Amino acid sequence: MTEHHEHSLGLQDNTELLHRISVRLTDRFAGVFAAETVERYVFESYSALARTAKIKTYLPSTTEHFANDRLSALAKSKGAVASVVPEVLFVCVQNAGRSQMAAALLNVEAKGRIRVRSAGSLPAAELDPAVVAAMSEMGLDLTKDYPKPLTDDVVRASDVVITMGCGDSCPIYPGKRYEDWELADPAGLPVEAVRIIRDEIHDRVKALAASLLTNPDADKAESNA
Amino acid sequence: MTEHHEHSLGLQDNTELLHRISVRLTDRFAGVFAAETVERYVFESYSALARTAKIKTYLPSTTEHFANDRLSALAKSKGAVASVVPEVLFVCVQNAGRSQMAAALLNVEAKGRIRVRSAGSLPAAELDPAVVAAMSEMGLDLTKDYPKPLTDDVVRASDVVITMGCGDSCPIYPGKRYEDWELADPAGLPVEAVRIIRDEIHDRVKALAASLLTNPDADKAESNA
Repeated sequence: MTEHHEHSLGLQDNTELLHRISVRLTDRFAGVFAAETVERYVFESYSALARTAKIKTYLPSTTEHFANDRLSALAKSKGAVASVVPEVLFVCVQNAGRSQMAAALLNVEAKGRIRVRSAGSLPAAELDPAVVAAMSEMGLDLTKDYPKPLTDDVVRASDVVITMGCGDSCPIYPGKRYEDWELADPAGLPVEAVRIIRDEIHDRVKALAASLLTNPDADKAESNA
Repeated sequence: MTEHHEHSLGLQDNTELLHRISVRLTDRFAGVFAAETVERYVFESYSALARTAKIKTYLPSTTEHFANDRLSALAKSKGAVASVVPEVLFVCVQNAGRSQMAAALLNVEAKGRIRVRSAGSLPAAELDPAVVAAMSEMGLDLTKDYPKPLTDDVVRASDVVITMGCGDSCPIYPGKRYEDWELADPAGLPVEAVRIIRDEIHDRVKALAASLLTNPDADKAESNA
């Protein structure tokens, strides 16, 4: 998240920039994915984020981040890389509130012992400001986070998928631990109301972390590292 | 569009089905794309359509159709296949009304001499019923069409990109002929009002077809076949 561009990238030729990102990620995934695959991921990730992102300024850096995360997920689900920690995916509709809070809180609770992702079935243009405020009160900075579309790679890589009101939009694969959390939608609510939802998510996340970290083999049979 | 499945595919394991689609498309694009690329396109196309599709019944057949169309676009933009006809892309927000009408009407006017595609920056769950009705009056059947997300491959393959109210969401690449058509949005309008928009689109489409077919080299310098 170090690249800043002052001009809109939605109406420009960004081919060169995306090619440079592709070269970097091809190096990172050398021996795992062909350059062609990496380049497709970069261009496709850019295109998917550009459709919904409100602020285009950060699109190159979010594209690199998102494509890298998806390629890591794909490598894991293909068995190309060993994963020693359980992987958890939170899904809500917009990836602007509930799933973002859950991911941030699980990252805190897991302290690196769980790989955490979030996504939305219909990603919003940006995070809900009241959600960012409520998380900021806990010392958690979500200002760099961005709504991401749900993709098959991250679903497949996940050992646990938690949905929050996304209905049938989330494809479910067998062999996963799957939970649906009934939670109020923070969209449009004031920060006082968001705090209540945040704290309920926090309680559920603590229980989830405890179940995954005390007995990881129950959810991740291959994890004998 | 021959596969019919009575159960919802949004909550099932569809891996086998998607693999079979991948095998078919890998055969079709043999020598152009690696199996890995084709499989990624199939899974990614499924995932993108599943996020927004209202009816999951036809998802396998729409996935195969959409992935095939995107791979054809990618092959063309990479120069891997020769294209002897100009390619036109219509983009609106939902790909549920204006861009669908424009694509259907241009197909009629071009009689196979133009490759026509459409996409939406935020695809709807299904086509607008009043739009389907208004097109049906002209003898054009849109009941098998479906809203598709805007992807970089189809933008890159297109010689002409026409946007209709999608704002900054459409990435524009240099060297394209690009037009923005100001048209009323048919979403939620009765069929009487949709007819007026349909006829305005038809007039514009006729002019577009004439300009492309009388002097294709003006828009497609490589087309000397």
